[in-house]
Amino acid sequence: MKFCSQCGSNAVTFSIPKGDDRPRHLCSNCGAIHYINPRVIVGVLPYLNDRVMLCKRAIEPRQGLWTLPAGFMENGESSEEGALRESWEEARASIRVDGLYSVYDIPYINQVYLMYRGELTDTNFAPGPESLEVELFREEDVPWPEIAFPIMHKTLKHYFEDSKQGRYQLHRGVISRKLKL
Amino acid sequence: MKFCSQCGSNAVTFSIPKGDDRPRHLCSNCGAIHYINPRVIVGVLPYLNDRVMLCKRAIEPRQGLWTLPAGFMENGESSEEGALRESWEEARASIRVDGLYSVYDIPYINQVYLMYRGELTDTNFAPGPESLEVELFREEDVPWPEIAFPIMHKTLKHYFEDSKQGRYQLHRGVISRKLKL
Ligand SMILES: [Zn+2]
Ligand SMILES: [Zn+2]
Repeated sequence: MKFCSQCGSNAVTFSIPKGDDRPRHLCSNCGAIHYINPRVIVGVLPYLNDRVMLCKRAIEPRQGLWTLPAGFMENGESSEEGALRESWEEARASIRVDGLYSVYDIPYINQVYLMYRGELTDTNFAPGPESLEVELFREEDVPWPEIAFPIMHKTLKHYFEDSKQGRYQLHRGVISRKLKL
Repeated sequence: MKFCSQCGSNAVTFSIPKGDDRPRHLCSNCGAIHYINPRVIVGVLPYLNDRVMLCKRAIEPRQGLWTLPAGFMENGESSEEGALRESWEEARASIRVDGLYSVYDIPYINQVYLMYRGELTDTNFAPGPESLEVELFREEDVPWPEIAFPIMHKTLKHYFEDSKQGRYQLHRGVISRKLKL
């Protein structure tokens, strides 16, 4: 933050406000304190019988790699609504949500992932503007080395494990640095 | 947002960027798009035997009412770390976390709550600067009409129900307007 969004002054420092215990963007002109907080990414693991739906990314980062539909949660929506919106935007997929399936913190990039699990209601999916391809994969056909993000890799692994047990439980974890898969 | 935090210009409009589908704070001077996303509140339901710990709020909103320790998640921490930090700040409480217990969306105020469940490791708790009192309550002694927020009321109700079943499961929901309790 270079300029105060309240008053336009460039007298913005990164220092600890009185009574606080960590640095914030402080405007010494108007006194505004600008908080910057983690962002929520919402998404879905869409399945149909023994297959899961993946999208090949048309955009950076990780263009050309495969991922589950997900994106930044927007103001005014619930996390489930956001997850379904992303599935529509990226894969034109219609999904009936079963429940929240994985919650991952990624503190080093200030993100929290909320991933739902849901069944595709039909196979009329198709790439949206941010996807090159959308496809269903059985476990053995998943392009594991080409999964775009560790959080998606973990969520997919949990899913196929749980499928074998016939029991789906919430998975939670912290991704604390860039993982080599 | 009145001024662009990138360039300091006051030429900030709230309109739909090219290729987007909803209005953002757009700077027509430097082209910056300023996204505003939901915030995450992290907290804990601390218990000890058949009692739960509540804090009487020393600050607005809902000053003088009772709540579970919770607050805005900070950059650089995991949600569990944030929940424990809040427990310390508000109640000087030490807690051993059992797991994530409730996830509530409150879209009308752009918040997502992640509430953990955890056992107090001792009874050396005490009010922090944002609390007037910190106390343990059995179910029948909880000051139900004086619980500060519907999300906390729901989480407490779930907890005492689950305690009777001897089985704690994740609770998830959406609070879509101000509820009368
Ligand atoms: Zn200012
Ligand atoms: Zn600008």
